[in-house]
Amino acid sequence: MSEPRRIAVLGSTGSVGTQTLDVIRQLPGHFQVVSLAAGANHDLLASQILEFRPEHASWEGEPRPHLRAALAAVNCTRATTEDLALDCDVPLIATAGAAGLLPTLAALRAGMPVAIANKEVLVMAGSIVRSAMRSGGGTLHPVDSEHSAIWQCLWGEERHEIRRILLTASGGAFRDFDRSRLAGVTAEQALNHPTWNMGAKITVDSATLMNKGMETIEAMWLFDVTMDKVEVVLHRESIVHSMVEFSDGSVKAQLGVPDMRLPIQLALAYPDRMPTPPMASLDLAKIGTLNFGTPDMDRFPCLRLAMEAGRRGGTYPCAMAAADEVAVERFMAGEIGFLDIPAIVEGVLDEHESVADPDLETVLAVDQQARAHARRLAPGVTV
Amino acid sequence: MSEPRRIAVLGSTGSVGTQTLDVIRQLPGHFQVVSLAAGANHDLLASQILEFRPEHASWEGEPRPHLRAALAAVNCTRATTEDLALDCDVPLIATAGAAGLLPTLAALRAGMPVAIANKEVLVMAGSIVRSAMRSGGGTLHPVDSEHSAIWQCLWGEERHEIRRILLTASGGAFRDFDRSRLAGVTAEQALNHPTWNMGAKITVDSATLMNKGMETIEAMWLFDVTMDKVEVVLHRESIVHSMVEFSDGSVKAQLGVPDMRLPIQLALAYPDRMPTPPMASLDLAKIGTLNFGTPDMDRFPCLRLAMEAGRRGGTYPCAMAAADEVAVERFMAGEIGFLDIPAIVEGVLDEHESVADPDLETVLAVDQQARAHARRLAPGVTV
Repeated sequence: MSEPRRIAVLGSTGSVGTQTLDVIRQLPGHFQVVSLAAGANHDLLASQILEFRPEHASWEGEPRPHLRAALAAVNCTRATTEDLALDCDVPLIATAGAAGLLPTLAALRAGMPVAIANKEVLVMAGSIVRSAMRSGGGTLHPVDSEHSAIWQCLWGEERHEIRRILLTASGGAFRDFDRSRLAGVTAEQALNHPTWNMGAKITVDSATLMNKGMETIEAMWLFDVTMDKVEVVLHRESIVHSMVEFSDGSVKAQLGVPDMRLPIQLALAYPDRMPTPPMASLDLAKIGTLNFGTPDMDRFPCLRLAMEAGRRGGTYPCAMAAADEVAVERFMAGEIGFLDIPAIVEGVLDEHESVADPDLETVLAVDQQARAHARRLAPGVTV
Repeated sequence: MSEPRRIAVLGSTGSVGTQTLDVIRQLPGHFQVVSLAAGANHDLLASQILEFRPEHASWEGEPRPHLRAALAAVNCTRATTEDLALDCDVPLIATAGAAGLLPTLAALRAGMPVAIANKEVLVMAGSIVRSAMRSGGGTLHPVDSEHSAIWQCLWGEERHEIRRILLTASGGAFRDFDRSRLAGVTAEQALNHPTWNMGAKITVDSATLMNKGMETIEAMWLFDVTMDKVEVVLHRESIVHSMVEFSDGSVKAQLGVPDMRLPIQLALAYPDRMPTPPMASLDLAKIGTLNFGTPDMDRFPCLRLAMEAGRRGGTYPCAMAAADEVAVERFMAGEIGFLDIPAIVEGVLDEHESVADPDLETVLAVDQQARAHARRLAPGVTV
């Protein structure tokens, strides 16, 4: 890349957002942060603005003093997240929840590449995102390590030759717990994830395997395959980030040290790969052993529920994601147990009336209804 | 592929040759065998001619009765291997030794794709092969499972982004033997290879790790890298067929059940992949564990000798391959011990006077000199 690539970082104060800024910091001359979007964390946003001097920014509510001072200091002005996503070379969408949806759709409709780290966008509105890609010609660069792996395995390959997508799963913090131990798991335990450095919601989702379930749905939309081509393989070392099997039985895998900065930089720099000295080389001989197995859908029903929602389609995945978000909030608040999370998700899905090919309003309405339903459901039911 | 691809199978009675015909047999309508070349096994060639009805064939010496009858029955005529390689869509070069060299060069100079299963062609004359590719525009489709893996990992990637090529090695039949046990190994033991179904010479070369050493040299020429970018990783399960690490630390691997028919069909069908029902799907969860380690160059000096020859360049690799062929013959004849193989190779290399950028005559002359030298050397020296 000769000119620095102009990047909009949406969700800059979250886990992926701060790691993205770390990548950009370590590759001087390659990227320019032209805008930053955050939520309520005005102080961190302010210091990011002072460091990266973006042209535009977005935040929630009235700017607090630090933020106001930072904006004035570097002459940075407020804009909507959609405008931020359009006024750059590559927007990176790392906002949580539905907030990532509109800027993603805007950029895809404008034919842009979008570095996508937000799960909900594809889980809630996968069909809408794909139709935006078709109509506008935009492309998605996955930031998630699993989807980045699949993406890399597909370079130079034909989509019709995909026999199976093999998503690897570390198994979460409680992969070896039986049901009775799982029932007693606390939020504190769940937040202690063995390998990846992530946000709180996604860490709980990793422990329930809901995160992996959502990734199967994302894989469907990112790589245009049906759920019967998606499988989950347990792989505790998190070294093989995912695999693709082709029509002749050949399997390609992407491996690496578990470091989110690798998929982040690839999503920003594609089709280039950035030579980054701080990234450690993978030393397989030192690691010695890689283990693989089959996930236990009885102990981790969220994986089964998510794959079923993906198979059924319509607004099932949207209702599931919304129910899960509320269930995880209630778990973190100590209100319900770990095994109540899948119970509440299943309770919501059981009564959900799915809409085929939903539009954006329908998706947002289903999201609200499912949340309300998930808040009402009493704990103590077992899946 | 609409029209069947016209294939010339050179070395049709050997291990790779018969497996190639098996692949073609199992994919009716995709390939047509337009010519067959063999050596002294006239009877097998005759039955192949009767089955595949090629237009042309090549063999050693006067045709014996069965062969004469087969040729007459299907109206098949004799031609040189160079003519066979030129009169087809893809020649598959599975002849042993130097016999593969001239047809390979002819096809590459004519701008054709060549499915290459012959090791000696690249080890003896890598620089000549590359210059034929450059001048004629021909390309090599590797048939060896390791190089096929690397080839697949490089699709959609830029060559300048290669940081390391990681060749996997099963470790051979005696990977766990100490030196004293290695000293007593018999030819019979060496021919009992754990995983792959191969010819006798290559099976012994697998046991000494000379085969892996030659593969490091082939990788240099196939993928246009220097030896400092090639590493060997021990991997006893032979499931990961090889890997490539890129400049950003990302590693791609190709995996599959150990079955030569997979890389063979890919070399013939490229850029297509053939959906082949007889090929088993890889079941990693069932396999459970993949192990990796570092090869022991003290117990297996052939690997060190080969990589050193590749690093030095010139006619070192040619002299090494020739010396190894004679040493293996002497070992199979019970004339020398297993550890005399590297000793003889090293003895020849120690006295070899390398020629830089050799032409074909030089290569063939070095081949003869090194063979003569290897025949003269007494066993009993230790490397």
